[in-house]
Amino acid sequence: MVKVSIFGSTGTIGKNVAFTLARMDTVDEIVMVSRPKSLDKVKGETYDMYDALAARDIDCKLIPTCDFNEIRGSEIVLIAAGIHRQPGMNRLELAIPNAKIVRYYSKQIAKYAPDSIILVATNPVDVMTTIALEASGFNKMKVIGVGNHLDSLRLKNYFSRKININSSEVHTRVVGEHGNHMVPLLSSTSIGGIPLKYFEFAKLDVDALVEQLKNAGNTIISKKGATEYGPAFAISNLISTMITDSHKVLTVSFYLEGEVEGVRNVSLGVPAITSKNGIEMIVPIHMNDVEKESFIEAANVVRDTTYKVKENLNI
Amino acid sequence: MVKVSIFGSTGTIGKNVAFTLARMDTVDEIVMVSRPKSLDKVKGETYDMYDALAARDIDCKLIPTCDFNEIRGSEIVLIAAGIHRQPGMNRLELAIPNAKIVRYYSKQIAKYAPDSIILVATNPVDVMTTIALEASGFNKMKVIGVGNHLDSLRLKNYFSRKININSSEVHTRVVGEHGNHMVPLLSSTSIGGIPLKYFEFAKLDVDALVEQLKNAGNTIISKKGATEYGPAFAISNLISTMITDSHKVLTVSFYLEGEVEGVRNVSLGVPAITSKNGIEMIVPIHMNDVEKESFIEAANVVRDTTYKVKENLNI
Amino acid sequence: MVKVSIFGSTGTIGKNVAFTLARMDTVDEIVMVSRPKSLDKVKGETYDMYDALAARDIDCKLIPTCDFNEIRGSEIVLIAAGIHRQPGMNRLELAIPNAKIVRYYSKQIAKYAPDSIILVATNPVDVMTTIALEASGFNKMKVIGVGNHLDSLRLKNYFSRKININSSEVHTRVVGEHGNHMVPLLSSTSIGGIPLKYFEFAKLDVDALVEQLKNAGNTIISKKGATEYGPAFAISNLISTMITDSHKVLTVSFYLEGEVEGVRNVSLGVPAITSKNGIEMIVPIHMNDVEKESFIEAANVVRDTTYKVKENLNI
Amino acid sequence: MVKVSIFGSTGTIGKNVAFTLARMDTVDEIVMVSRPKSLDKVKGETYDMYDALAARDIDCKLIPTCDFNEIRGSEIVLIAAGIHRQPGMNRLELAIPNAKIVRYYSKQIAKYAPDSIILVATNPVDVMTTIALEASGFNKMKVIGVGNHLDSLRLKNYFSRKININSSEVHTRVVGEHGNHMVPLLSSTSIGGIPLKYFEFAKLDVDALVEQLKNAGNTIISKKGATEYGPAFAISNLISTMITDSHKVLTVSFYLEGEVEGVRNVSLGVPAITSKNGIEMIVPIHMNDVEKESFIEAANVVRDTTYKVKENLNI
Repeated sequence: MVKVSIFGSTGTIGKNVAFTLARMDTVDEIVMVSRPKSLDKVKGETYDMYDALAARDIDCKLIPTCDFNEIRGSEIVLIAAGIHRQPGMNRLELAIPNAKIVRYYSKQIAKYAPDSIILVATNPVDVMTTIALEASGFNKMKVIGVGNHLDSLRLKNYFSRKININSSEVHTRVVGEHGNHMVPLLSSTSIGGIPLKYFEFAKLDVDALVEQLKNAGNTIISKKGATEYGPAFAISNLISTMITDSHKVLTVSFYLEGEVEGVRNVSLGVPAITSKNGIEMIVPIHMNDVEKESFIEAANVVRDTTYKVKENLNI
Repeated sequence: MVKVSIFGSTGTIGKNVAFTLARMDTVDEIVMVSRPKSLDKVKGETYDMYDALAARDIDCKLIPTCDFNEIRGSEIVLIAAGIHRQPGMNRLELAIPNAKIVRYYSKQIAKYAPDSIILVATNPVDVMTTIALEASGFNKMKVIGVGNHLDSLRLKNYFSRKININSSEVHTRVVGEHGNHMVPLLSSTSIGGIPLKYFEFAKLDVDALVEQLKNAGNTIISKKGATEYGPAFAISNLISTMITDSHKVLTVSFYLEGEVEGVRNVSLGVPAITSKNGIEMIVPIHMNDVEKESFIEAANVVRDTTYKVKENLNI
Repeated sequence: MVKVSIFGSTGTIGKNVAFTLARMDTVDEIVMVSRPKSLDKVKGETYDMYDALAARDIDCKLIPTCDFNEIRGSEIVLIAAGIHRQPGMNRLELAIPNAKIVRYYSKQIAKYAPDSIILVATNPVDVMTTIALEASGFNKMKVIGVGNHLDSLRLKNYFSRKININSSEVHTRVVGEHGNHMVPLLSSTSIGGIPLKYFEFAKLDVDALVEQLKNAGNTIISKKGATEYGPAFAISNLISTMITDSHKVLTVSFYLEGEVEGVRNVSLGVPAITSKNGIEMIVPIHMNDVEKESFIEAANVVRDTTYKVKENLNI
Repeated sequence: MVKVSIFGSTGTIGKNVAFTLARMDTVDEIVMVSRPKSLDKVKGETYDMYDALAARDIDCKLIPTCDFNEIRGSEIVLIAAGIHRQPGMNRLELAIPNAKIVRYYSKQIAKYAPDSIILVATNPVDVMTTIALEASGFNKMKVIGVGNHLDSLRLKNYFSRKININSSEVHTRVVGEHGNHMVPLLSSTSIGGIPLKYFEFAKLDVDALVEQLKNAGNTIISKKGATEYGPAFAISNLISTMITDSHKVLTVSFYLEGEVEGVRNVSLGVPAITSKNGIEMIVPIHMNDVEKESFIEAANVVRDTTYKVKENLNI
């Protein structure tokens, strides 16, 4: 009996995560938490999902609710609630209201589902991971931000389509901030087990791909209004890895205390072996000098924002 | 190389069908046709979908386009374009503008993909099936409306959840109109191979379930604004059955010329063996007297609307 | 963490069940119990299976062992051990040695995995179900024989292929003995939701199909030496239904105390809602007079054999 | 309509490939070719498989036959026929009789399925790939041996289990001979995107793993009598990649004419982008000096055996 709960289940990402999880054999119950004014909307979502599940003969229990008691016994709780970045909004203008939301829900999770793993998807996700960690008081191996995993999937996708090779053949990883200060680890990227640098024949304009990557979210938002399927599948991947205890190495936002390049007191995207316990261990990264420098810069930027947010919230 | 094209790919249903098909091993290429002003939106959808597909290492080609030439070679073309019913709108007010759209696209399909199967999802679907049939000039075994299949899935789902039995155990079917004049074939419904009438112990209030069924679409629309996952999965089921030549018996809207109860000159939902050729044959239905009467009434209502629509369009 | 244990894991069926379960997301650990002299063979099986699982990136733990302690914590224990029927061997000559084996393992299961569900696949399975029930002292809802489920799948397959309709459309069920006294419930068989009797057009020679069904196992054994994939998949279906708590209606051998047609003191194949608790409830069957008579005859035959076996074993 | 044919379908590997393919949505028809004296056995296999497929509602056509005409229209033909290495048998004693078989079937394939791709699984596979290439007269991009792909899966599996990381995270590759002269490319092995050399913490005894790898086939044969699931899944992987045109980089035996390290006139395992056309291109390998030397030695050994075999067969 595996139970997952979602805060922010009326949002495009929250509801798509719910629907994706509902189709997995390994998930039995999904609690879709909403504010009272949105409860009817969430109910509508569950009716629509049940119709679809019947098309595949899948029986999964969907629980639309405003009652935090319902999350009791969850193995994983996803926080996908929050406001979206508006045009012209700066980083702090997004971070402060969202930090209040994430802090509040993290405290509820600590109270009602104290043995769960918290997954944070609210942006700016690296800042929010620290907020959730501190508000919940959880062990840091059980508070995980989802950001660079999506960036990594995107970069993998770009290489795969440029070279016309199956995406499973591309091993690449983006670390650092889920934002402008992301750090694509090109030095350890390989395709079909062959290091990227030997793919000269493919005439890859790697710089252009990285630029495309940094703009990926904004490009989609400018075109269709919101990101939807990409984040939902990145998050579902992570949840599925934990539920099935699969020990995959996924890039997650994690509160660092010197584990990577001596960086401390900030949550950043780093590769981690992920399991039913949350994070098993941080996998050693080997960055070249440019990558290292960018990683440290990302740490400084995110740490600074996190401090300002906490100051503003008086925490 | 299986190729499916979609008209109306910016709508909630069209895009969800595209994304569902993209995840199937059996579909290689999906053409998402849009009007010029929506092309950018469709491109955004494909970027978002590619991100998600990378999460599962699925490589499917998505082609956003305004150019009808791109649909050449499609095995199946879905028409999901059209306006939605607004509050207070009567049947004809919905049917007339949508008939224009369906007629136009059907002619394009006849021109660019003359060997394809046309699948109609635009409402009122039974009327639109006849419009598409006549505009395309296709053999009627290759023009299929999707309506009662969703109704059937819903009813199956209700029984399944009421009795707490896997939905694969419920064999039920809704025929007639995809609308108020739908006809649930309760007399031949069985659960786990046992006729419904022997499930007295389960204390099913069948009338209430049928009422819930008739309102299902409106309930979801009133709560979440639109139906989305349910129709998309019903349509994908049908497409998948055809692509894999699975010979399932699905309830589809089909232009009748006496095949069922002598009903003629109208498209209505009836059970059909579905294959790579479209419809293989209509399966004999055995209705009790009440069901028969309702079916004939549905025929009269839909035929009447279809005539009025055609009259209005001068066809 | 779902754990399944198998007695008889060196046999064709036992090992194929293990390999089928290993590929399910929902099973984490499979204990393959063997006698000391076969331990090396089972180890070889696990090495071979691990190679195959790597081809799909599946991580499942396989535990070859002679130590009954390893089955602790299993949710389900399968008994597939026993000798095979040799040409000229009568029913009792098969039943007596196998009853000794089943009795012995059932006692071990009661000791080492007292909270598990016992699944019996050793033949004659209806007799063995009673033996396992009594030796384990388990609640009868947790001692399940697999026999008629395979017969039902076979009959479904025959109809499906004769009519060229997807097998999911065929709802049929075989009850009674898993052997010559099986009872195909033709009166409640339906195809695509339409009762079998309305399929005159398909010109089905139902008697010939039933004859083919009764000989199915022997036909395969005479040709390839043993049944292998069919029983393994029937068993895996049942295990999967229990693990995912799917509430499917499967025909299982079950110790009757009047639940069906007043039959008592014998295990026979009857339809049951199956769940994580084993059997939830026996589904009401409605047989016509001929079917009823055959069912009661099956009961008499199996009960008689069961008594003789128990007498021989002094139990 | 995808059709695959199998020569050697009564063998453990041939029949397991058939059964694995039968469960794929993407395969519609499997021709199981046998010699007349084994036709009954193959028929038994298909009956048993149909029973199992019914358990999953899968409809795939299985055609047991002795008639080569049946392979017409196959997209892929697998040659898995041949004798097995007996204890004390040397390389040539295995190669010569098997070369006769492979040569004969390759000529039949050229005649009856001239547009197919030939997949060779008979051992010694690198020698047999050349035999099949020359006997069929096919373009070398369409004659593929399966050997090192299995070795690669095995090595991946060993690393994965030693480190307790999901096998999808291990990118490793074995090239050269499918036999004692295999060449594990440790220098370009990475785990979770991190080069193997940085995994000191895991205290891997790589030499021992390579030793275990070289003996893997023999170990399984000595324990369970034959390899079965591992080869079948490696082969199915390859077939599935071709059918779905997935462009994965798989290590296949391929007739070299200078593509890798200038090696010529011998078939050896090298990484290739695999598609519906067979081999799209050989991926550039970067070996260290030790690996290079071993690769060239493998080439010499296999070329020498191939020459001797051809001499013996007067070809």
